[in-house]
Amino acid sequence: MHKISIITVGGTIDKVYFDAKSEYEVGPPNIEKVLAELNLSISYSINSLMRKDSLDLTKADRTLIAATVAEDPCKRIVITHGTDTMVETALQLTTIGNKTIVLTGALEPALFKTSDAVFNIGCALGAVQSMPPGVYIAMNGKVFPADNVRKNLKENRFETLE
Amino acid sequence: MHKISIITVGGTIDKVYFDAKSEYEVGPPNIEKVLAELNLSISYSINSLMRKDSLDLTKADRTLIAATVAEDPCKRIVITHGTDTMVETALQLTTIGNKTIVLTGALEPALFKTSDAVFNIGCALGAVQSMPPGVYIAMNGKVFPADNVRKNLKENRFETLE
Amino acid sequence: MHKISIITVGGTIDKVYFDAKSEYEVGPPNIEKVLAELNLSISYSINSLMRKDSLDLTKADRTLIAATVAEDPCKRIVITHGTDTMVETALQLTTIGNKTIVLTGALEPALFKTSDAVFNIGCALGAVQSMPPGVYIAMNGKVFPADNVRKNLKENRFETLE
Amino acid sequence: MHKISIITVGGTIDKVYFDAKSEYEVGPPNIEKVLAELNLSISYSINSLMRKDSLDLTKADRTLIAATVAEDPCKRIVITHGTDTMVETALQLTTIGNKTIVLTGALEPALFKTSDAVFNIGCALGAVQSMPPGVYIAMNGKVFPADNVRKNLKENRFETLE
Repeated sequence: MHKISIITVGGTIDKVYFDAKSEYEVGPPNIEKVLAELNLSISYSINSLMRKDSLDLTKADRTLIAATVAEDPCKRIVITHGTDTMVETALQLTTIGNKTIVLTGALEPALFKTSDAVFNIGCALGAVQSMPPGVYIAMNGKVFPADNVRKNLKENRFETLE
Repeated sequence: MHKISIITVGGTIDKVYFDAKSEYEVGPPNIEKVLAELNLSISYSINSLMRKDSLDLTKADRTLIAATVAEDPCKRIVITHGTDTMVETALQLTTIGNKTIVLTGALEPALFKTSDAVFNIGCALGAVQSMPPGVYIAMNGKVFPADNVRKNLKENRFETLE
Repeated sequence: MHKISIITVGGTIDKVYFDAKSEYEVGPPNIEKVLAELNLSISYSINSLMRKDSLDLTKADRTLIAATVAEDPCKRIVITHGTDTMVETALQLTTIGNKTIVLTGALEPALFKTSDAVFNIGCALGAVQSMPPGVYIAMNGKVFPADNVRKNLKENRFETLE
Repeated sequence: MHKISIITVGGTIDKVYFDAKSEYEVGPPNIEKVLAELNLSISYSINSLMRKDSLDLTKADRTLIAATVAEDPCKRIVITHGTDTMVETALQLTTIGNKTIVLTGALEPALFKTSDAVFNIGCALGAVQSMPPGVYIAMNGKVFPADNVRKNLKENRFETLE
């Protein structure tokens, strides 16, 4: 059994560009490439569960994500997820009591030179190994509890509810 | 008071290149530039304590690092440090009991396209917010306790002692 | 008078990403940022004439581009342009006889890590200083005469007509 | 026969970093990797003739470079070369009358995020296809004739002699 289970559901972090259509699509999980290029000392698996913009995630999708996390034998779980509904998914996972679950993603596609993806993935991995069981969001350099975080759309940044 | 105090002492992460001499020198702390380019939700300060290759750190340097950490009013401390003697410095800090201290650095200078610096900084920040008091090393994607880690020179990677 | 006049009309090279809408828009001319970061020994000006996807360029737009080039006192002109109708614009400029005109652009937005933008800009600048008067396209590492080039959509590459 | 022959002799463009020694060495020709990642429409070959800092090039090395260029069946030749003695090598090649020869290199190693290598390679390829026979240096965005260029060490930039 791997020490860390990574589940990917899509979002900006995985967006790729198609010139023909001049638009984005959610591509394969970028975290796989990022981690493969580093020479890591951790044991992990990656499960590409779905490839969706988080605005397109349905109730059924969230039920599937929760069931996948609940059934995962691993106690430490990272989920890469779109940012717009990341908090909603995180809150739904709080009923799973015995795992450390950290959601992360990116505000800019990982393929961009200035993307926050690599930093966020590092932050999520640091948190998932360190936090007691619970659900957290690692974005903008901060590890938030799922019940005290929101995406500030105007600032394009996650912040505490206050 | 900032929530996270960052102390930099040099190392590969901060190495810059001088064409004239075709060699490296330790430059200003790279973590400052990395964090400034991200839109962070954390409060932090950066103290550039020294700029040394970690092989050149003396006993007096380590005494100064330990005193600086001990006197820091902040309870969560990240230190960027050269990799060759990172473990030695970490072990010396273990007598400071009431702070969460995470050392990190890079195996390739941060200015390189393929550097591990941004990922490691993310990992260290994720860990320093999440870990109970103690001294840790965040390298190669893993958060190691200071007393169970070594740098494997041949593999150019940090690993547990086993 | 500058030695090289750069005129930008938009295209993939200048595309930026808006998370809110999950789509691209043509932003400010990327060539300005690319050249500013290099320590160049050439004298140049940049005129951001329009910001359009090249598929959206109208007959009036092309008339404006041609007039702008014709009236430019500079004899060496680089145009950054979308790739889909770059050849069409190039052909329309062939009646201007006394200038060296090189069109270039990018198949991936310049903000991408793997973009061809910087390479193409270098290639266009190398060609515009070296070619006799005429109209050329510098893409995919090759300097094509305007009347012997097409964009191969399937291969996503410019090639000679043969 | 390839249309463009690329000969590499070393220099900053090819410098790699060895952590163990905290210093640079000249590695394999970087231009190979740069060009392989682009989807080029030109036909070229790469000959890694030597791997030297240009300050270490001897008279015998320059004789070998000149002989290699003279015997090359290709009429268009790019040479990647260290910057410190690039002009000296260029001047020695001016007796070869029937080829277009463009020397280029980089002021920062190609592995650096901010390296000028990709831009310079683009510029050299644009020039080598466009210039009449002669010897040129493509650096800092300018295509210089071999007999009217120097490296300004203080500004770290190539410029005309005036």
